[in-house]
Amino acid sequence: MGYHPNPIAKKLIQKKTLNIGVVVPEFINAFFPEVIIGIQDVLIKKGYQVLIVQSNECFETELKNVQSLEENMVDGLIISLSRETKNLDYYKSLIDQNYPIIFFNRYNEDLSASKVIFDDFKWSFFVSEHLIKQGCKKIFHFSAYNHLLLARNRIKGFKKALDKYGIKYDKDWITETGLFVEEGEQVMQGLIEKDNIPDGIVCANDKTAFGAMREIKKNGLSIPTDIALTGFSESPLVELVDPPLTSVIQPTHEMGEIAAKLLLKKIENEHMTPETVILNGTLNVRASSLKVKSQ
Amino acid sequence: MGYHPNPIAKKLIQKKTLNIGVVVPEFINAFFPEVIIGIQDVLIKKGYQVLIVQSNECFETELKNVQSLEENMVDGLIISLSRETKNLDYYKSLIDQNYPIIFFNRYNEDLSASKVIFDDFKWSFFVSEHLIKQGCKKIFHFSAYNHLLLARNRIKGFKKALDKYGIKYDKDWITETGLFVEEGEQVMQGLIEKDNIPDGIVCANDKTAFGAMREIKKNGLSIPTDIALTGFSESPLVELVDPPLTSVIQPTHEMGEIAAKLLLKKIENEHMTPETVILNGTLNVRASSLKVKSQ
Repeated sequence: MGYHPNPIAKKLIQKKTLNIGVVVPEFINAFFPEVIIGIQDVLIKKGYQVLIVQSNECFETELKNVQSLEENMVDGLIISLSRETKNLDYYKSLIDQNYPIIFFNRYNEDLSASKVIFDDFKWSFFVSEHLIKQGCKKIFHFSAYNHLLLARNRIKGFKKALDKYGIKYDKDWITETGLFVEEGEQVMQGLIEKDNIPDGIVCANDKTAFGAMREIKKNGLSIPTDIALTGFSESPLVELVDPPLTSVIQPTHEMGEIAAKLLLKKIENEHMTPETVILNGTLNVRASSLKVKSQ
Repeated sequence: MGYHPNPIAKKLIQKKTLNIGVVVPEFINAFFPEVIIGIQDVLIKKGYQVLIVQSNECFETELKNVQSLEENMVDGLIISLSRETKNLDYYKSLIDQNYPIIFFNRYNEDLSASKVIFDDFKWSFFVSEHLIKQGCKKIFHFSAYNHLLLARNRIKGFKKALDKYGIKYDKDWITETGLFVEEGEQVMQGLIEKDNIPDGIVCANDKTAFGAMREIKKNGLSIPTDIALTGFSESPLVELVDPPLTSVIQPTHEMGEIAAKLLLKKIENEHMTPETVILNGTLNVRASSLKVKSQ
């Protein structure tokens, strides 16, 4: 590789940098920036630089991004897949070549690489159970994009909670919504227009919950009395909205640190057996879902 | 350069990618992610890939990041400086070599490169004037890090408004706060403890305003009756906090697009005369600052 550092940089920095590429689907939600900071905190100490690319949830951009990083000869990749990614051939070929590659948050079960993920099933169960314990009887789930494994796992957790407490649900209680404020708003608007109003909603993330909240308030309904609302992913602003939003904290920084450590392990030993680290969360109950005071 | 694409990638993508490096100081605030999306929207269409690095507001990391991008032979750089960056030697040497480099938002007047910036003076003046027109008499400015040019320009705009309306201010009305929720909270807490309470606050950004808001509410003071509050940079959640926050919209996406276009121009003509594009904003008045109903 033609390495010709600028003479001033050379004076300031003596050694050749090692690069790691991080591929994220988007970074408007604080989730990915927070994970990346965790990744950098581990890797910078070890002398690595972190090059980030974002796919805008587009598979073609993701693939070009990954190729661009590979061309630039990064020493390893940490990836969270775009919502469009279904063709895994390229990733499979990298893994077959023992290229150091780690997945986090959004992955695919057909890829035999190490990964760090969140226990979406369990925490979706807990947050759904919380609404049931608050007396909700008609609980909707505004799910993320359903072809994402994390969305499907959260749907499973939601269903499991309703089943456990003997609540029969219609198919339309689970509605594919997405991950952005406008999407939450739109789905809520549709329900209000059809007068099909739940008394509780488990949202896929905080943003969709913020959107639902805006629409609920605009229509003169009250939270939590008419509709109890929960988010997911604990963004920094859950305490500032009105009413404060119940959410599930995901250990984003830890997710990044573990992804970085798994990558360093793979770089040291290319024949390591793939590992899966599953992280736990915390349910933070706030006014948006608290119908029963003495819980 | 040793270019050896993976055969599957080669099949999927025929042409060699061109890379642009984007250097941001942080991306927890939505500001930088939004600018980057604007940059990508222009560059991806032109066949460029965008490699992003984030400096965590640290000069050493920033410099290593830039060197890492340069080593990886990006075809140009778009940079917003970290809050620590004072040594400009490296950037000056790149500019002297006619390396394509564009600055946005945070720059330094000693660098003779093209840049796209926001008219901080003017919009800080307008938002301060708005509070004066609402009847505020003791207006504080929670400023950003004072060695940033944008922070100093906003201080100038704030002072200009107070001068114009003949409001005499103490030195302590301008208090260096920063850019994060906790920083706004902390400065507000200090004022409440010292019982030195303003009737209006112009915050450097929305996050510091959210922090001040949290602290004001915690202490049983009301917004805007006791303290009228304004943010800056219009984050997506200003409408969702209680009360909704008055803020200044900065054209983040446009800032990114223009930065990308300036870079393409510089790549096409390395001897171009440096250009400065100054962008305007919009003041969005909401309940957090609206004391006078009939404004």
